[in-house]
Amino acid sequence: MFKLTFLGTSSGVPTKYRNVTALALQTTLNRDWWLIDCGEATQQRLQHIALTVHDLAGICITHVHGDHTYGLPGLLASASMNGRKRPLILIAPAAVKAWLEATFLHTDLYLTFPIIHIDVDGDQEVHQEPGLRITSHALSHREPSVAYRFAVENSKWRLDNAALQASGVAPGPLWGKLQAGHDVQLDDGTVLAADEFRIAQVDRAAVVVGGDNDTPSLLSGACEGAQLLVHEATYTEAVLQKVGPGPTHSSVQRVAQFATASGVPNLILTHFSPRYDNSEGMAEVEAEARQHYEGALFLARDFDRYELSVDGVVRKLEA
Amino acid sequence: MFKLTFLGTSSGVPTKYRNVTALALQTTLNRDWWLIDCGEATQQRLQHIALTVHDLAGICITHVHGDHTYGLPGLLASASMNGRKRPLILIAPAAVKAWLEATFLHTDLYLTFPIIHIDVDGDQEVHQEPGLRITSHALSHREPSVAYRFAVENSKWRLDNAALQASGVAPGPLWGKLQAGHDVQLDDGTVLAADEFRIAQVDRAAVVVGGDNDTPSLLSGACEGAQLLVHEATYTEAVLQKVGPGPTHSSVQRVAQFATASGVPNLILTHFSPRYDNSEGMAEVEAEARQHYEGALFLARDFDRYELSVDGVVRKLEA
Repeated sequence: MFKLTFLGTSSGVPTKYRNVTALALQTTLNRDWWLIDCGEATQQRLQHIALTVHDLAGICITHVHGDHTYGLPGLLASASMNGRKRPLILIAPAAVKAWLEATFLHTDLYLTFPIIHIDVDGDQEVHQEPGLRITSHALSHREPSVAYRFAVENSKWRLDNAALQASGVAPGPLWGKLQAGHDVQLDDGTVLAADEFRIAQVDRAAVVVGGDNDTPSLLSGACEGAQLLVHEATYTEAVLQKVGPGPTHSSVQRVAQFATASGVPNLILTHFSPRYDNSEGMAEVEAEARQHYEGALFLARDFDRYELSVDGVVRKLEA
Repeated sequence: MFKLTFLGTSSGVPTKYRNVTALALQTTLNRDWWLIDCGEATQQRLQHIALTVHDLAGICITHVHGDHTYGLPGLLASASMNGRKRPLILIAPAAVKAWLEATFLHTDLYLTFPIIHIDVDGDQEVHQEPGLRITSHALSHREPSVAYRFAVENSKWRLDNAALQASGVAPGPLWGKLQAGHDVQLDDGTVLAADEFRIAQVDRAAVVVGGDNDTPSLLSGACEGAQLLVHEATYTEAVLQKVGPGPTHSSVQRVAQFATASGVPNLILTHFSPRYDNSEGMAEVEAEARQHYEGALFLARDFDRYELSVDGVVRKLEA
């Protein structure tokens, strides 16, 4: 139902192996993809994966801090230089729009495509199209910050095999016509109505992607019915206690405990402080997470790709 | 006298192997280094070389276009997160200052160090310190654009061996004292004045680094006495003719012809259109350059390092 590609998994500053935050999200609906946050050098990251800016439907920015936004002007400029015409949806707090407008003004940047700005301010529906609904959910951070919930509904028709066999129609081209919704006439003149031989099946899945946030429980509502939570885990709990509440980030423990309480079956942690960017550091993060969460757990690395299947299972795809 | 490290050599948009423009310049004077232009992801490039932001004395921006500036906010933010206190000199057209101030305002960015803004507007001295003089030189581009000329004077004292031998002082510690400028007294009471036994030697070198520019001859004055010119060569002449004068860039031919006319003995071309980012493309660029310039020619690639020695020779350093 979803594919996620992590383009940056470091908090605040890039490291040699982790860039600042950006996440590409695809659905099974179509070729479109969505970008959630756009830290500096996101466009450079995109050159190493299969997604193109032409298929980018929209960008969702969680909050205005530079490690989540400084890649925006370059990505928009390059899309223009490559001749993009398709309008781009930009869902973001108002400060992002103000900064971009100042950037257009001062840096002689003219886009070849329109931007459809959707101002985000807390809990609201920010986008809806057939099969896809995106909502924003207020978080707690130094600057206004939100999570985005992507909910997909994929409707399809499957054949009612029992009914078909009872009607005596042998497997063949007629089955395909019925499945596509066409009534068919048999050689003996009998007319079979498609609606009596097919059953609507609706697959649903939802993913919640948090922005910077020191209070995971704010996502209780958003996580209802969601199969996957992606959330920052900037520090281990011990380091968060030492650093104090100033940075308004979450600890691994707090996110893991919330994920357990909310019952979300898959959890991907990201946005790690550079102090953990080594095998000992990541082992510490993983141990703390597993102590408080027994679901399917993943610690994102740059270029990691994950798939959420229709049965609600998340698996990491091969590189 | 100088070391140059190319951090980005692509024009307009990054490619898989070339980032947008940035160039690190070191002198033999001290540990300081200077950054000329700061395209997006310059800070990520810096993580792969030996220079640290702590030793960065200043940034010279040639013009406001994003492929030369969009890495500035992230580099400044990361320097702050890493606790930089040392003031940073920022030599740039006024539009860059305006854009940065808008960026500070809208994106909640507070620096831990002061920025010393030097507004650039055409031909002027933009910085002077013992041994180093930086001047700017107006170019012709869609937005106000300049070249920077770095002139280094490295003064040192060498001993006058003939005078020493005539005085009968045997080689030993006294020679070192004289070289350091201390008068010395011999066992027989004779006093030797340092100034009579040492000779001032001044090594000089100058490098000119152009910004985007469609008229290389504007650098005639700047190139007088310079040993190295670094200049954009966005297109081959045939492509420039096809593209037309709109982009206000130089062709390889025009830069090479100017370098020949100015007599500058070393030429490094950079800022290539992505269309040349393959071996055939670069071969075409090189052939056109060699046709019009017989000096020492280099086509910059990302992470290339070059040294300009005291005898005016440029050589490419091993990776």
